[in-house]
Parts: sequence; structure tokens; C-alpha cells
Amino acid sequence: MTTDSQRRGQRLQELTRTGPLTEMGKLLRRFWQPIAVCAELAPATARPVRVLSEDLTLYCGASGTPYLVGGRCAHRCTVLHTGWVEGESIRCMYHGWQYDGSGRCTERPAEGDRTPPNVRIAGYPLTEYAGLIFSYLGPGEAPPFDLPRKEVFERPGPIVARRQVWDYNWLQAVENSLDAVHVSFVHAYGREGSFIEAVTQAIPELEYVETEAGIRQIATRGVGNVRISDWTFPNNNHIRIPGPFPGSPWIDVGLWTVAVDDEHTARLNVYGAPAADPDVDRRVSAYLEGIGDYNPADHYQQLVLERCMPDDPLLQLTNAQDYIAQRGQGVIADRGAETLGRSDAGIALLRRIYVRELEAIKSGRETKPWRRLEQPADLPMQGAGAKRR
Amino acid sequence: MTTDSQRRGQRLQELTRTGPLTEMGKLLRRFWQPIAVCAELAPATARPVRVLSEDLTLYCGASGTPYLVGGRCAHRCTVLHTGWVEGESIRCMYHGWQYDGSGRCTERPAEGDRTPPNVRIAGYPLTEYAGLIFSYLGPGEAPPFDLPRKEVFERPGPIVARRQVWDYNWLQAVENSLDAVHVSFVHAYGREGSFIEAVTQAIPELEYVETEAGIRQIATRGVGNVRISDWTFPNNNHIRIPGPFPGSPWIDVGLWTVAVDDEHTARLNVYGAPAADPDVDRRVSAYLEGIGDYNPADHYQQLVLERCMPDDPLLQLTNAQDYIAQRGQGVIADRGAETLGRSDAGIALLRRIYVRELEAIKSGRETKPWRRLEQPADLPMQGAGAKRR
Amino acid sequence: MTTDSQRRGQRLQELTRTGPLTEMGKLLRRFWQPIAVCAELAPATARPVRVLSEDLTLYCGASGTPYLVGGRCAHRCTVLHTGWVEGESIRCMYHGWQYDGSGRCTERPAEGDRTPPNVRIAGYPLTEYAGLIFSYLGPGEAPPFDLPRKEVFERPGPIVARRQVWDYNWLQAVENSLDAVHVSFVHAYGREGSFIEAVTQAIPELEYVETEAGIRQIATRGVGNVRISDWTFPNNNHIRIPGPFPGSPWIDVGLWTVAVDDEHTARLNVYGAPAADPDVDRRVSAYLEGIGDYNPADHYQQLVLERCMPDDPLLQLTNAQDYIAQRGQGVIADRGAETLGRSDAGIALLRRIYVRELEAIKSGRETKPWRRLEQPADLPMQGAGAKRR
Repeated sequence: MTTDSQRRGQRLQELTRTGPLTEMGKLLRRFWQPIAVCAELAPATARPVRVLSEDLTLYCGASGTPYLVGGRCAHRCTVLHTGWVEGESIRCMYHGWQYDGSGRCTERPAEGDRTPPNVRIAGYPLTEYAGLIFSYLGPGEAPPFDLPRKEVFERPGPIVARRQVWDYNWLQAVENSLDAVHVSFVHAYGREGSFIEAVTQAIPELEYVETEAGIRQIATRGVGNVRISDWTFPNNNHIRIPGPFPGSPWIDVGLWTVAVDDEHTARLNVYGAPAADPDVDRRVSAYLEGIGDYNPADHYQQLVLERCMPDDPLLQLTNAQDYIAQRGQGVIADRGAETLGRSDAGIALLRRIYVRELEAIKSGRETKPWRRLEQPADLPMQGAGAKRR
Repeated sequence: MTTDSQRRGQRLQELTRTGPLTEMGKLLRRFWQPIAVCAELAPATARPVRVLSEDLTLYCGASGTPYLVGGRCAHRCTVLHTGWVEGESIRCMYHGWQYDGSGRCTERPAEGDRTPPNVRIAGYPLTEYAGLIFSYLGPGEAPPFDLPRKEVFERPGPIVARRQVWDYNWLQAVENSLDAVHVSFVHAYGREGSFIEAVTQAIPELEYVETEAGIRQIATRGVGNVRISDWTFPNNNHIRIPGPFPGSPWIDVGLWTVAVDDEHTARLNVYGAPAADPDVDRRVSAYLEGIGDYNPADHYQQLVLERCMPDDPLLQLTNAQDYIAQRGQGVIADRGAETLGRSDAGIALLRRIYVRELEAIKSGRETKPWRRLEQPADLPMQGAGAKRR
Repeated sequence: MTTDSQRRGQRLQELTRTGPLTEMGKLLRRFWQPIAVCAELAPATARPVRVLSEDLTLYCGASGTPYLVGGRCAHRCTVLHTGWVEGESIRCMYHGWQYDGSGRCTERPAEGDRTPPNVRIAGYPLTEYAGLIFSYLGPGEAPPFDLPRKEVFERPGPIVARRQVWDYNWLQAVENSLDAVHVSFVHAYGREGSFIEAVTQAIPELEYVETEAGIRQIATRGVGNVRISDWTFPNNNHIRIPGPFPGSPWIDVGLWTVAVDDEHTARLNVYGAPAADPDVDRRVSAYLEGIGDYNPADHYQQLVLERCMPDDPLLQLTNAQDYIAQRGQGVIADRGAETLGRSDAGIALLRRIYVRELEAIKSGRETKPWRRLEQPADLPMQGAGAKRR
């Protein structure tokens, strides 16, 4: 039995590795992946960004257009983000080599060549959507930007994006999205906030169905207390949570879970509320912007050892609770030591799909043509918390 | 010659490794090992504890009884100490699996099974003694709790226990216990405190004798200046040190050296003084409790590079001096680079005994039936410091 | 092509490794290497020092003479710098073994032997020059102390030495010395200070010539704007920079780049100005002493991510700019990923010389008999900054 568990653990370990040469890394690179928050990248600035174990330079041209190129200058390999953004190009601070937004070297001042020979660093296409910058790190032409879109993030109303980095493997975070039971326990940890008050601690009946876009998850905690989420392949969830104060509408959350490397995970969230009256909209926006700086990974000791939770009873609290549960599995969870049950049906389905798609890639077969849901669920705004409205 | 030294170094390296699969780890697990201070574990709380490279959960039931179980829930492997203590059980914060104090899973709320199948995590017996919680991490039935007992910790009078973790291998700390010469130098380092004033810096005549419990160590620094300690196999020492102020009686110290892992060592000490008049007892207790928070490992830079020593001239000072000497040997000392002399007789005897017991285990022979001394030494209260009383 | 690059990267990696058993380590050990600043070592004190991956003890006898011996006592291997300096000897704090400045053990108090047997630790000769302590870590007799000498550091006038440790491989720092183009870009980074104002950002014409002492580097940025530096094998540069304030003379800088280990590099600098009138000399000395504490490696986050530069427009600023460029290449630059051009002629020559000398050592041939320049260049005090005088 130990041997079976260990074998399973080893097989699942493949799903945790996302570097450029790994199978999972190749699969994830076939999809648009968010890497940054638009509002955090000022014109004519550059910063380093690590995605799927690749070190890159994200810079914003004078025009406001973002570009994603290799992390280091081709010449002496100094990091490029310390250089100068000039127009839509970036210049290395060491000897002034200049690159355009596609990664092509356009100038080498001390070499005396007007047109440099064919020197390139990596360069990847970007798209801005719902306040996030998405990148396509795969080979060939990028697919149309369609699968990640959600109607709710294109309607009028308050919308805020944020990114934070947690210190463990991405798969733990994704699996948590397909695990409706955790809500009943994790979100009662330390303190009960408005999310668990709305959802209740009842143990749900579970239903998981593969869709053309990913997995639909239905957790029924009683009559009029049904939670639905539409998870999109390969690493995005869409849920709905109660608003931050009485009278405010429920908020749609788009949550992308992108490996920084195998031991760090970026969580890129979009929070969007439907337009209500202007005063409510203003308060909702202010709330969403106000909670952005809190990152539970900065408070490990306090949260895990002192059980001292953040003040905000909605986003900061649920954030912290999720962090404690997932970080508690270790930096990379040992899946060979697990004891799954029938309530882990969502996680089991998720893993089967990943393994199936990896097998397709490895044997040269076509992967599933994932496409945006034609009929996305109208996620219920219910639960005990419905009373609060 | 180099080759001989290197071979000896490699052989001795075996003594430094104490994980569950190592030979030394197996030997140490045959004995009760202290892991925590009773007074620091409040009812209905849990904490992580690492012992001999094993990660465990120490929790205290509502009744005040402590329990020691595996570090992670069997389900998705989240650490258990973040969960809830309920009565005498502990419940995981991720999906609510519940365990009793023996490590048996007693509830899996989302699985719908009243009686869970045979799911277990580790569970180890505990005993409280002299203010410390002792665990038995070995296989089979725990031995009777007898070898670690000392009459002096069962008499009336002030008694205080404490635990601190130092950042190097356990064997350096144990060897220091069988090394009477170090007192003459180490405890003069930086500043002379009341301990070295009592013992003096004279070079001692040494005598080491194996007893039925461990090793008796006799260091004679002159007429009326004899220091005896009774070291108990496998990792406990018993010494006597001068009291903290004029007129206070000498204090018995029981010192256990327990590997946290191969690079960290827990020192669990019991300080017990004989009952004197109530006012002296109060002052001695207050002193012993007051010095508890000081851990020299928190002051490495200050102690080792700036030579800035703690204020308290007795326990904090000797503590800091021992730390500097032992930490100075490296995280795991390279015993292949040593040049032992005849004054290292205690260390040589200690190593011979460890090696002999390991050989017995490896070849399936019986190890020595270590048992509590029938006639423990009445440790002298002498030295120049005797004058101070 | 990738394979060629990788092979080149691997070959050049040999130059980055300087431990006692490496070829580059053996080559560097044939030369006097500075390890400390005289003024920072008080009589009767000791400190640890790591040079070329060797851990050593640098202590200063009561007479003021410095000594360099092994890092650990031969007995139980405790670090020796925590011991006591007694006269011209050092005594271990663990059991009192005493060593003289050659590393010979002269006393073992608890062993009862008046004359200890032949116990030794390492011991290396030292020389003081220009405010620095130089060591010879090689085998056999040390060469005469001649190659590192510069007339300009032996003339009257203000002279100040300092040492700082940067967190990357030594070779990046040395290569930067033979790379005149970097000045035009790196020293404009963040802010233009008095150095780049003097030198100008023009792209230089380059000339690199091997001399009997090392490499002469000539960078011509226009008529009357010529920069010359005399680099001395294996790791010393000599440049001239503008003075810190109007009217102050240009300053000669001797810069030694000594590997602490493969991931840390000590930069030992001597700054010497020619004697001017006493008031100017006082101000120049005060300036040189005042900037000594600034180490850009303590400000990585601030410099590299926040682009917040130090106040001083000369030494601190150029220091910080160099640090950003070189640290940006990584802890150990991957030279297999480079794209060198003709403007890297100095770096190419430097590498060829190192490789040639290593090959000589490996095949048992004589290395070049490097000797002090008979006619050192009179480094020009020019550039746009000449106007400032």
C-alpha cells in the first residue's frame, strides 16, 4: 500500500512542476496567463517578473503599452529591468544595448554597427483585460484572448484587480478552488467573518461536472443555500461572495493561480460588482482598493503560530484563512501521504483532467479544445447571508 | 594519517544523525525524551513540535492532559496544530477530520461515515515529570518512567523547567557535558560570573567511570574543590551549581539534550533547589523564572562577534559561554579534524559507549539494561564559591 | 551554437572558483592578497576572516603586529577568534590551547605537556602596505612584496583604505575593471555624479595592451579626454578619479578584488591624493573617511528595485552603480549565455591571460614572471571634469 501511495505521489508531483522544460509547464504555456496588475505599471518603468520559473522583464513604454521581454541583456546578462525605458524600447544599464518590445536588439552603442546582427532575447505578447496584464508564453501564435473572458467583468460597475505572491506550490491553491467542503471549516478558523456567515458551516452536497471550459462545481448546503463556481481550465476560478457591507451587491471574483516558480504562487484576482447607485459603487470601490495591500504570506508567524487574524471580516480574513490551510500542507504538499475521500471528488476530477491533457501532449495527440462557456452559470447570491441584504 | 582521521570522522558522524531511519535515532527512541515545559502548554491549545527530525503536534486537552500526535492530518496533510482542540481531541482546520490523543481518526464530517475506517496518524505516550513533558517515540510498549528520575527533583523546594533551542547538532552539547576541563576556560570567557568563581579556573584532575545509569564524572581542582556530575544515558546530565545570591542554596540542574533535527538541539533543563526559608525560596524561584526567556542563540552576532555578554552572572552567562564554545565548532562539528588528548577521556568514553550500543542494535544483540542509580552521588557543594555561603 | 556557448560557459566557470583545491585558487594564492584594513584591527583583538573560501583567524598581538592563522583550534575545532589574544599568541576559549602567529600550538594546559607535540594549524605571512594588510596564502616562501606597490601610494598626502564585501562572484568585479565602456552607461544610472561629469558619456575608443605587470587600458573619449588605467595581475586595478570638491586634486584608487568565497567578493580599496595645502588635505581626508561605511550590498532592494541612490555624488554613487550592474549579472554570471562584441576586448584579453596562466600551472610549466611596471603610466587627470579644477 505504501508503494502505491508513493507511486501516486510521484505521478502527481509532475503536476506541481511548471518550468519551461516540464510537461506541466508546456501545458500551462498554451494558455493566456495573467502576470501583473495594469494599474501598478507606470509608463516608462520596468520591473522583473518571474512566471512559471522564467525570469522576465515587464516594462511599460512611454505610450502606456506594456511589453514582456527576457530578464537579461544578451550581452553580459545583466538584468534588464534596471535599464532605461526609452519610447517603446528598453536599454540595458551596463553597456546600453537596446531592445524593442518583441525582444529584438535594436542598438549596441559601443559596437559601431547601425543595424545590429540578429540578436534577440525572449519576447512575449501581452493583452490587458479586467485590470490585469495577460501574457502568452507558449510557442507559435497566441490563441485568441477568449477563454479567460467573463461577462461579469465587462459590465459597468466597480472593478479592482490585485496580485499577491504566496510561498508554496501553485497546485495546492488550484486544488483548493475545487474543494467546496473547505469553506465550512477553513473559513471558520480564527474568527467567523461575513463570508462564512453567508455560506454557513453546513456540510454541502457536492456535484462536479466537466464543462467545455473547465469544471462546474455545485455545493448545496440546504434549500436556498447553493454555491456554484465555474472553474476554467487550466487555473482560473469564478466565484461570487457577499458584498462588504449591508446593501452592497454580491461581488464576482475571478481568481487566477499562476506559478511564480515551484515554491511560489501568484494569485491574480479581479473583483467586480454590478453597478448600483453611485454612492454604493463608490463605497464598494473604496473597500476593494483598501484591502489590496494585505498579503497573509507577510504574516506567517502571526497567523499560523499566534492565531492573530486580520481585521477586515471579508476579503482579508478569507484570504488569511485560505493561506493558513494551504501553506499548512507544506511548500510542496506530499500527495503520496494523502487519504482522499468521496468529498474530494472535485480534486480527483481536476487531477484526472490534468493527467489526461498531459498524456495527450506527451503522446502527440490533440488536447481538448477548451472554449469559453456559452452559458455561464448565473452564480447564486444566496446562503444565510442573503438575509443580510 | 589523514585517512584515519577522515575514517574516524565519518564513523562519528553516525552519532550526529537522529532521524527515524537512522541507527542513532533508533537508539535514542528507546528512551523517554523530554519535549516541552508543562507550564507553557495551556489547556485546549496545540503547537507544532519537532523531535529527532519528526514533525509532531503537541496539544493539551480541555482536561489539561497533553497529547502528542502526528504533525499532519492524514487527509490532505495540513499541519494539525492550526486546528481546534475539542475536549481531548483535535480537529483539522482544513476539512474537520478529528483525532483522539492516540492518533486515531474519530470523525470525517464530509465523508458521511459515523465510524471512520481505520485511519491513523502517529500517537506517542507522554509523561509529566519535574515540570517537563516526556515522550516515548520508540516502537512497542514504553519502558517504565524510571531512568530519568532524580530524588532531588522530587523533594520540596523551588523548581523551574525551561526549554530552549540552539542552532547546532545535539552531540556537541552532550559531549560538552562530559568535558570538565571546559569549565576552566569557557566560563571565564567575556566575564567571570559566580559559577566560575565557585569552581575556580584551576585545571582539574579527571575521573570518568561508567555506571549502571551512565557516566560518573569527577573533576578535582584541589582539596575541598571537587565537582561531580552523574550523567544518565543517553542524553541527560545532572550537575550542581552555586545559588544565585549569597545565602541561597546550591541548585541541582537536570539537563536534557534532545535533537530537534540534525542542525538544531533542544535543551530542556530542570532547576531545583532544596527548600530553605520561605523568603529565600521565593527569591530563588523568582530568579529561576526570570532568566527563562534568555536564549543565547538569539544573540549570535552580539556574543560571538561583539563579545557582549548577558547581565545575569550565573545562568544566562554560563548559558551564553557554553553556546559560544559549542556553536563555534560549527553546525555539525567535523570530528575528523580533531586532535584529542588525554583530557578528553570523558568524550572518548561517551563515544565508545554510544558506538557499543549502536553495534548491539545493528547486530541484533541486547543493549545494556540502563537503570536508575541505586546510590546517586551526593554532588558536592564546594569550590571557592563555598566560601560565599 | 548553443553547444559551443555552453562549452565556453563551462570553461570560463573554472575562473570563478577560487577554493584551495581549485586551479584558479592555486593561481591566486601565488600572489599577495589584501584581506583587511590595518586601522580596523585593534591590538589584542581577533576576528574571523574568509579568503578564497578558507576560514581563517586574523588577530593583532599586543605589540600591534597582525597574524593570520587557521580558523579553528586543532583540538575540538572551535573557532579561534573567540579566544584570548595573549602577547603575540592566541588562546582557544574552549580548552585553552595556545598558538603563536605561525600557527604552532605552544600550550595545551590540560594535557600536562610543557612542550606540546607537533600540533599546528595554518599560519600565513602578512605585510602591511598603504593601510591594508596583505597575506600570502600560497605554498613555499612568499614572493617579495613588490608587484602590488604603486608610487602614488607611497607619496605624501591623504590616504585612506577600506574593505567591503559584495554578494557575488569575484570575476564579475574584475572583468568590470577591464571594461571601459560601462562607464558611459552604468555611471549615468539613477543620477549623474561628478565622476561621469568628468569622464563624459561619450563612447570611447579602446586600447588594451598586456604589460609586464598586467594590462594597460586606454579609453579615448575625445581630444583631452583620455582615461588610462594600469591593471596588475591577478586582481588589482589602478585608476584616477576627480576629487570630491572643486579645487581638490584627482585621487588615485587602488582596487583589489579578492574572493571571500565563490559567492562573495571583498573589495579592498586604497584612495590616495597628492599632498596639497593642509586645508585641502584635511577636507579630502575627511571626505574619504566619511564615505567608508556605505556598502551598496546593504541596500539591494532600495538600489535595484526602488532606484533610490546614495547622496554622495562621487564614491558612494559610483560604488552603488557598479554594484547594481555587476550584481545584476547574478551571483555567478552564466558566461555561456553571453554575446560578446568587439568592445569587450579588455574582458577577452583578461580571460585569455587567466586561461593561459592556468594552462601553464596545469601542465607544470612556468607562469609569466609578473613584475612591477618600470614605467607606470601617469594617469591623465582629464575629461570634461578637468574644467572643474
